[in-house]
Amino acid sequence: MSLTNATPLEVAQAARLGSRKLAVLSTEERNAALTAIHQALADGKDEVLAANAEDLEAANKAAAGGTLSASLVKRLDLGKPGKYEDMLQGILDVRELEDPINKTTAKTLLDDNLTLSRITCPIGVLLIIFEARPEVIANISALAIKSGNAAILKGGRESSNSFAAIASIISKALSSSPVPSGCLQLVQTHDVIADLLKLDTYIDLCIPRGGNKLVRYVKDTTTIPVLGHADGICSVYLRGDYPADKATKIIIDAKCSYPAGCNATEQLLVEESALSTTLPSVAEALLKKGVSLRCDPPSLAALKERLDPHSATLLQAAGPEDFDTEFLDYILAIKAVPSLDDAISHINAHSSHHTDAILTLDAKIAQTFISAIDSSSVYWNTSTRMADGQRYGFGTEVGISTNKIHSRGPVGLEGLTIYKWVLVGDAQVSAEYGAGGKSWKHEKLAVGEGEFVARDEGEREVLRQYRARGEE
Amino acid sequence: MSLTNATPLEVAQAARLGSRKLAVLSTEERNAALTAIHQALADGKDEVLAANAEDLEAANKAAAGGTLSASLVKRLDLGKPGKYEDMLQGILDVRELEDPINKTTAKTLLDDNLTLSRITCPIGVLLIIFEARPEVIANISALAIKSGNAAILKGGRESSNSFAAIASIISKALSSSPVPSGCLQLVQTHDVIADLLKLDTYIDLCIPRGGNKLVRYVKDTTTIPVLGHADGICSVYLRGDYPADKATKIIIDAKCSYPAGCNATEQLLVEESALSTTLPSVAEALLKKGVSLRCDPPSLAALKERLDPHSATLLQAAGPEDFDTEFLDYILAIKAVPSLDDAISHINAHSSHHTDAILTLDAKIAQTFISAIDSSSVYWNTSTRMADGQRYGFGTEVGISTNKIHSRGPVGLEGLTIYKWVLVGDAQVSAEYGAGGKSWKHEKLAVGEGEFVARDEGEREVLRQYRARGEE
Repeated sequence: MSLTNATPLEVAQAARLGSRKLAVLSTEERNAALTAIHQALADGKDEVLAANAEDLEAANKAAAGGTLSASLVKRLDLGKPGKYEDMLQGILDVRELEDPINKTTAKTLLDDNLTLSRITCPIGVLLIIFEARPEVIANISALAIKSGNAAILKGGRESSNSFAAIASIISKALSSSPVPSGCLQLVQTHDVIADLLKLDTYIDLCIPRGGNKLVRYVKDTTTIPVLGHADGICSVYLRGDYPADKATKIIIDAKCSYPAGCNATEQLLVEESALSTTLPSVAEALLKKGVSLRCDPPSLAALKERLDPHSATLLQAAGPEDFDTEFLDYILAIKAVPSLDDAISHINAHSSHHTDAILTLDAKIAQTFISAIDSSSVYWNTSTRMADGQRYGFGTEVGISTNKIHSRGPVGLEGLTIYKWVLVGDAQVSAEYGAGGKSWKHEKLAVGEGEFVARDEGEREVLRQYRARGEE
Repeated sequence: MSLTNATPLEVAQAARLGSRKLAVLSTEERNAALTAIHQALADGKDEVLAANAEDLEAANKAAAGGTLSASLVKRLDLGKPGKYEDMLQGILDVRELEDPINKTTAKTLLDDNLTLSRITCPIGVLLIIFEARPEVIANISALAIKSGNAAILKGGRESSNSFAAIASIISKALSSSPVPSGCLQLVQTHDVIADLLKLDTYIDLCIPRGGNKLVRYVKDTTTIPVLGHADGICSVYLRGDYPADKATKIIIDAKCSYPAGCNATEQLLVEESALSTTLPSVAEALLKKGVSLRCDPPSLAALKERLDPHSATLLQAAGPEDFDTEFLDYILAIKAVPSLDDAISHINAHSSHHTDAILTLDAKIAQTFISAIDSSSVYWNTSTRMADGQRYGFGTEVGISTNKIHSRGPVGLEGLTIYKWVLVGDAQVSAEYGAGGKSWKHEKLAVGEGEFVARDEGEREVLRQYRARGEE
């Protein structure tokens, strides 16, 4: 990795060149690079924290002047107890994950000695744009190397000293590894981004990790495919048959455990039969936590009738815009829905296709909901806050995708891979088949993990024949 | 399906609405729609051929006037013996393929009674733009319905009468099926395309099937993800150890069996040791077939020295642009390469990432080539012309993708699907885990094909508990 003065074109070309070398390294070689990065960052802790202190000082000044939020300053701090160690452990965690590349995921015998395999491989060059948290650079570097992808990283301005220190340490660590240094490159100045976004010949995938504004800018600016999500408008659909205690537990978690998260619930749809039964106790718990409830007329009427009037300050009438808003705050929009179909239509029209949940005891209703909802994660009787790569068992994630193609939901190592079709034959040609007289066998073969070409009987036979003829 | 006078926005909205209804239909319901379409098109053969005759008449006039190529006229003709029957059989073939949606492809027990499944589902709404061949509409309609996707189809102007007739028949057939008619919509006027390409809220994926110019226009115009390929610059790398007879057989097929195909080989890289041994007989066979050979200086010198001078008219010096050109004709660029690394670098820089082959008896060399080449299909000892959905055993294809994300290579039914993450719990919430005290189990579970939610022991236990409490 290098903190570079190169032009965007040079950065992208070097990354592309590096990516082709990285793609052919073995699991052990990529893992050894992660071990080296881990060790170097452990040894360089003082250096990184000193640089981080400079960023913090500048950030605190900016916060005092009102140009930076206090929560951003908090996220900058790498010196908080355990944070640096978590970052280091994260690198080892990624190293221990199963290698996502060179796996055969489908295999077909097209004809005797003619075997088609689908083999996972890296995508190539990733452009990852992220906001302030400096530890993300270590996490993303580890994911990129493990998945065999080169990465161009652009961090937030506020943590530039921390980034530079980490980048310089990682760079030194890589120089003694077989991973080419061009595979990880840090760019710092913001004006470079617009140029990089034009380089679709060299960059295969762009992952913006940040607010709505950043993601929209990237999506509107580039012809490079973009993986990510602009909004996180998640919904919970509460059915009348679901017990109030469980509903309350789930909805409190979904709204209050981290309201700033993209997987926090922003709207609650309530079956009409639950308005007078389950909703009041759910609403009471939410109001106690300080959540403002923006209700449509039926839910507002039901709650006004049943709730203690002193809670009423947080009960508000919803406007139409409240059902298209990512609040990221202690605010929840509530709407009564007459039927399952109405709930499905509302969610498909108003959610951001991130994560939506149904709370019901009815398996048939739940299955219809799960089939019909057009979102990357669909839940039955649990909280939308579960949408997270670590919780899904991916080890870590590069982000959450609401795309309709490639990777959807939390994106871990597997989401950073693609595949290629490998066909191994013995001089069979297309014109021999069909009108040429030969028929295709198209026999599906079993696939093993981690295998590669020339492992099955047909391919071994080809090699045996060559050997017998003294051709090898 | 309807040949519509609706606005592009209305078309796209209707397709989106239809897609959500189509997504929840069972395998049997989608297959029944294909049966109905097949029957209706069989019954309506005369009607379609009459419309096709009108297109042919106009096309023949245009060809006589020099504004249309004879090969295009040929491709328009649905009345050629067997062609209509092939189109009908294609619909039944797609019907018989395995259902690509509602398949569980990964399953993890996150905790007791908390199961995460990755389930395949349709992408949503496809916009498919294709050129003249009228039978494509039946093929693509079948693929779309089978994979649960709505499709907006734009055919070529030259076959508009044929399209209209087929569309009207399919529309009638669908009206008696559970597939909403909005799921398949034909648009005819070219000026609609620009508007449709703006509707990324409603259209999830665009598949242009046509020449380089069409694909580039679509890619440059839309923010909708595009699946396809602009160029098909395929290469063969010939090693010195590969027998001349097999090399000749493969290269003749790769270049001559259908030079206009995107999978035809456009460049031949030759290991230096093969210049004087294998290359001359390969070249002789190519020249006999009327292929012009555009050679770099070393390969030109080698061939001039060894070939009969009367062949020399087709031996030409290559210019640099010949190694970045899709000839689609009886022309082959030839280049000598000193090493495997040179071959890999040249292909990664000059091929269009479609299909590239190595011819060698050395398994280690072949494996390095396969790992290092950044193309959607990579072959060992066979012809690049094998890159085709039917040959790969997909039944049929919507096209060939050189994308680095989502689907790569020939795209069949599976390439038209995505997945959603389905999490089924019993009121577990995120805050209980980690700092909340509970740990994740993250146990990988076996997955079966065609299964859905609530099929494993943990989920059945949830339902049993509800039942025991009289909650269900």
